[in-house]
Amino acid sequence: MDTSLHPPGRPRSQRANDAILKAALELLAEQKNLADVSVEAIAARAGVGKATIYRRWSCKGELLTAAVATLRPPLPEVGNESVRDDLVELVTQICRDMDSPLDMAIRGLLLSDTHPEIIDRIKRTVFAPREEAIHAVLRRGIASGELRPGLEPAVVQRMLVGGALAGRGSEPAGSHRAYAERLVDTVLDGARTAAGA
Amino acid sequence: MDTSLHPPGRPRSQRANDAILKAALELLAEQKNLADVSVEAIAARAGVGKATIYRRWSCKGELLTAAVATLRPPLPEVGNESVRDDLVELVTQICRDMDSPLDMAIRGLLLSDTHPEIIDRIKRTVFAPREEAIHAVLRRGIASGELRPGLEPAVVQRMLVGGALAGRGSEPAGSHRAYAERLVDTVLDGARTAAGA
Repeated sequence: MDTSLHPPGRPRSQRANDAILKAALELLAEQKNLADVSVEAIAARAGVGKATIYRRWSCKGELLTAAVATLRPPLPEVGNESVRDDLVELVTQICRDMDSPLDMAIRGLLLSDTHPEIIDRIKRTVFAPREEAIHAVLRRGIASGELRPGLEPAVVQRMLVGGALAGRGSEPAGSHRAYAERLVDTVLDGARTAAGA
Repeated sequence: MDTSLHPPGRPRSQRANDAILKAALELLAEQKNLADVSVEAIAARAGVGKATIYRRWSCKGELLTAAVATLRPPLPEVGNESVRDDLVELVTQICRDMDSPLDMAIRGLLLSDTHPEIIDRIKRTVFAPREEAIHAVLRRGIASGELRPGLEPAVVQRMLVGGALAGRGSEPAGSHRAYAERLVDTVLDGARTAAGA
């Protein structure tokens, strides 16, 4: 049992909440299709009745969105540092968020070929604000003249997040900030020498 | 049916090969675990006997490796162009390879938590040579002075492949080369202006 989800003295309703969200993530990680992640199965896994779930979330889509949001919480507020330091802060958190045994739930979710409306909802409400946090720092850098005017924030964001994902499992444990710095500095500095340009 | 896999006049044994590899990929895409992708199930889906499969491949791992290799064939030979043009060529092919309806098979495969030895084998024999093709171009660029001496080929390679993956589905159909150029030019030129450095 993950004790961080069940600290002693937590109110009973909070404990039920945590158990339901954890059960939902475990089932998402195990199943290939959202059709097989039913509210009934989540209730059984969490040891609660379906009514307990429906008192908190109106439908499966709302519950799964809440569960995924625990793995992809809002990124930290940044904006007082250089573009470089702000990007390192955000990408460090992205690497940290991916480094959870339950993160398999997200990869499973994105493989589902049922319930596209639930996947859309999760992308819109959970993933998009995180992408926007990176876009905002990049737009600010372009506006301030730190970054090239023709830079495409979406391309840089995909390279940072994709690079974080592709490095998962290959970097030593606990090296999230160091790896984030290597990603950010590579894309900021560029690969080319002046002679190669 | 994908007619490209069954052109008229193809020898009968080649047609059986194609049907077996396609059946393996379909099952990989459908199942969550390699344990559920059995030689028996592949034979049934392909409409052949198990003996027909074992005449060609000695075990499930060898068959699945061959199937995945059809989705991730060797990258084109490059080395006569600039580092920029060589990278664009490789990343264009990577974007193209990912753009197949059967590509779901690879995402499914990497989610499996059974048969790590098969997954290792596929990474070593199918994915690693493709990564090495990009590393080789980057090392050549560092040696020639076109690229920065401190550049980490593995980090750039992950950003290019991760960026290709993260853009999948968001870019217009048939724009693989244009998207590859945006990824490559972003990492070569860097995001920073001289003033921001």
